[in-house]
Amino acid sequence: MIPLGRRRWAIPGGNIPPDSTGPEPRWTSFDELCVLNAGDGEASVAITIYYEDREPVGPYKIRIAGRRVRQLRLNDLIDPEAIPLGTAYACVVESSVPVVVQFVRQDTGRAENAALGLMGYPDDGTG
Amino acid sequence: MIPLGRRRWAIPGGNIPPDSTGPEPRWTSFDELCVLNAGDGEASVAITIYYEDREPVGPYKIRIAGRRVRQLRLNDLIDPEAIPLGTAYACVVESSVPVVVQFVRQDTGRAENAALGLMGYPDDGTG
Amino acid sequence: MIPLGRRRWAIPGGNIPPDSTGPEPRWTSFDELCVLNAGDGEASVAITIYYEDREPVGPYKIRIAGRRVRQLRLNDLIDPEAIPLGTAYACVVESSVPVVVQFVRQDTGRAENAALGLMGYPDDGTG
Amino acid sequence: MIPLGRRRWAIPGGNIPPDSTGPEPRWTSFDELCVLNAGDGEASVAITIYYEDREPVGPYKIRIAGRRVRQLRLNDLIDPEAIPLGTAYACVVESSVPVVVQFVRQDTGRAENAALGLMGYPDDGTG
Repeated sequence: MIPLGRRRWAIPGGNIPPDSTGPEPRWTSFDELCVLNAGDGEASVAITIYYEDREPVGPYKIRIAGRRVRQLRLNDLIDPEAIPLGTAYACVVESSVPVVVQFVRQDTGRAENAALGLMGYPDDGTG
Repeated sequence: MIPLGRRRWAIPGGNIPPDSTGPEPRWTSFDELCVLNAGDGEASVAITIYYEDREPVGPYKIRIAGRRVRQLRLNDLIDPEAIPLGTAYACVVESSVPVVVQFVRQDTGRAENAALGLMGYPDDGTG
Repeated sequence: MIPLGRRRWAIPGGNIPPDSTGPEPRWTSFDELCVLNAGDGEASVAITIYYEDREPVGPYKIRIAGRRVRQLRLNDLIDPEAIPLGTAYACVVESSVPVVVQFVRQDTGRAENAALGLMGYPDDGTG
Repeated sequence: MIPLGRRRWAIPGGNIPPDSTGPEPRWTSFDELCVLNAGDGEASVAITIYYEDREPVGPYKIRIAGRRVRQLRLNDLIDPEAIPLGTAYACVVESSVPVVVQFVRQDTGRAENAALGLMGYPDDGTG
């Protein structure tokens, strides 16, 4: 298969909602990265988290087998440290092989849920 | 007309909401692919579904006549098999002619509806 | 100013919500095209509407002065004909000069509002 | 690090919701620009606001240090003038170095919140 995707992606609008209503896990608020590795080889993925007022934190390392998708709640990242809730952050995702990266937020802080989704920015290194 | 679109698209963030509230079909939860074939010739479209923990399933085959759009609820795909609800998946859409692919989710699991929409990732095969 | 944008855009996921709740115009359901003409010259814009089961309709013609944005509710298009509510459609936007096109939906059919937004697909004619 | 992003971005669909419900600042309605400067050098960013019926206003100038994100509520811009609420506008973001720009809206005008998010249009100046 011709490689599908890019090796570097960025999402500037991270902010894990600080509160939730309703039963877990269906109605837990989250920010989520969805990473598709449509190729045959394993992807070594490094996530770096950028903040407004301190140095970036990372890499958060994950592996995704070939022909698999991973939908990763950013709330669940703990090594090297958890992302604080209700705090502005951005993600940069770098992969050893081409992948496709989407972002989804579910915010249940007010009893009814709101959601947003967007494709990441697929950087091609041309500036 | 100059061909409009691309032949390969990807959406990593699929997850059909497992529950709905309100009268069908207006308030049924869904994940939807919207495929525009603006050219004059028929498009033969093959959809492949990727999962987190098993091999991809497909192709799901559809045809779209020239100068037509198709808005296809992923809930309705049954051949070769239905996509389980509440399960992480990704879609890759491959077409015999250029098309444009968008994704829409409606989630009515909590009495009021949430929605998200995003353009697919239009891959150009340059990795 | 270096021209900003593209001359052709597509949005496959149109569907004007068929019902609304709450006072107009704040809470009227809508599908909206947002077109930015950042250049100095007027843009002649032609919108074509594609359907699932009949030939495309258009052009719907609008003009946008230089250095202006236009946010156009698709509900308001009437010439050559209104777009039926609750019906799948796609838009192709063609402009005489480069523009940037975004889509927004507000759905108030269930007392609380849902919204989605996405950038159009900026076609470059390379297929 | 290879520069990540582009120097010019556009978002045509601005419209700060005119009303809010619930405690500030968690539930204040907003339009927000999220700007990631992943490089090492400071970014000098100029925002221009386009309207439907008058000349553009700007530049609104902000600086973002290297390796930082800034999530800026457009409601908070006051120099040279505030953006009126409930009014159609577009943003063009120009930066001295490559950045990545996303847009988020939170609308709490109806007690439950709606949200939308999209990546900006990353212009490459090829028209």
